[in-house]
Amino acid sequence: MNFLEERIIKDGTIKPNNVLKVDSFLNHQMDIELMDRIGEEFYNRFKDCDITKVLTIEASGIAIACSVARCFNVPVVFAKKSKSINIDGEMYIAEVESFTHKNTNSVIVSKRFLNENDRVLIVDDFLANGCAMQGLIKITESAGATVMGLGIAIEKGFQIGGRVLRNLGYRLESLAIVESMDHETNTIKFRETVAV
Amino acid sequence: MNFLEERIIKDGTIKPNNVLKVDSFLNHQMDIELMDRIGEEFYNRFKDCDITKVLTIEASGIAIACSVARCFNVPVVFAKKSKSINIDGEMYIAEVESFTHKNTNSVIVSKRFLNENDRVLIVDDFLANGCAMQGLIKITESAGATVMGLGIAIEKGFQIGGRVLRNLGYRLESLAIVESMDHETNTIKFRETVAV
Repeated sequence: MNFLEERIIKDGTIKPNNVLKVDSFLNHQMDIELMDRIGEEFYNRFKDCDITKVLTIEASGIAIACSVARCFNVPVVFAKKSKSINIDGEMYIAEVESFTHKNTNSVIVSKRFLNENDRVLIVDDFLANGCAMQGLIKITESAGATVMGLGIAIEKGFQIGGRVLRNLGYRLESLAIVESMDHETNTIKFRETVAV
Repeated sequence: MNFLEERIIKDGTIKPNNVLKVDSFLNHQMDIELMDRIGEEFYNRFKDCDITKVLTIEASGIAIACSVARCFNVPVVFAKKSKSINIDGEMYIAEVESFTHKNTNSVIVSKRFLNENDRVLIVDDFLANGCAMQGLIKITESAGATVMGLGIAIEKGFQIGGRVLRNLGYRLESLAIVESMDHETNTIKFRETVAV
């Protein structure tokens, strides 16, 4: 097991209906040392990609994005979720359906912050059905920029997002892939991945 | 002028109706080196306060909070905005009226992440009417924790938030206080503060 898998076992909580709570260290309370370790790991995996920008979506992706961007010495851009689109200046917009919240959000990025010379690393804390990630990819490609890779802390391997993105040919690196989990027995099984 | 005031002059944009856009470096695209400098400055100002947690609110406060928390070697907790309150476990809740968006949000923090032993530094990128900050203070004090200080990157000194919080006796440190700004002449006037 790698450092993130170990932390999930130690401090994560398995709830009914395949809900994995990691809010004590990843997405509500945040352990900054862990964020930096995640950031360094993504840096190591993508360091040959000449990344010019790290893109994420508010809110819980921001901490990881900052730790990664520090390693690359590039800016973070975070996409905003909006119901009412603010047409102040021109925006790249993707309509993203949330599986968790059963609604549709507009995901927006100002056109000033992505352009055709950008080589973008997209990061987020979770990947499940991949809706948010698809929106970020659409926005990046709308800008004429290049998606160099996708970095995810925790992928729910039993949901469809990871498979879709890999099928589409994107280089997706997930630090921990949950193959299955069981609330009753409080057990979690990770997919075998490259050792970290 | 300090480093943040200089950056606002250089890269900020003054829009009509006292809107200051700093989205190229602070709250949409983010300059991580600047975030770290802001974090170090808050650390220097509050380093004798035995801070145990840095509290902020999603989304644009998170980057600053992470930079500050790294200096203190403590966790970040970020409050979530929610229209529908998720009653999964017990939450501290504050109803916060947004002046900008003309609506009311519930600001929530899990009770697991703040307790009576916590000495909390609350940070955010902007202070205008102070509604969000009031919600974070209420939540901290509901937990029996102590508000050790408030750290703000940019305060709109011509709006009421800063005055209210100082009147209430909180130690509020704003790195740049905009006294006035003028869209027509593209000028901005900062309040004299301690040199950074």
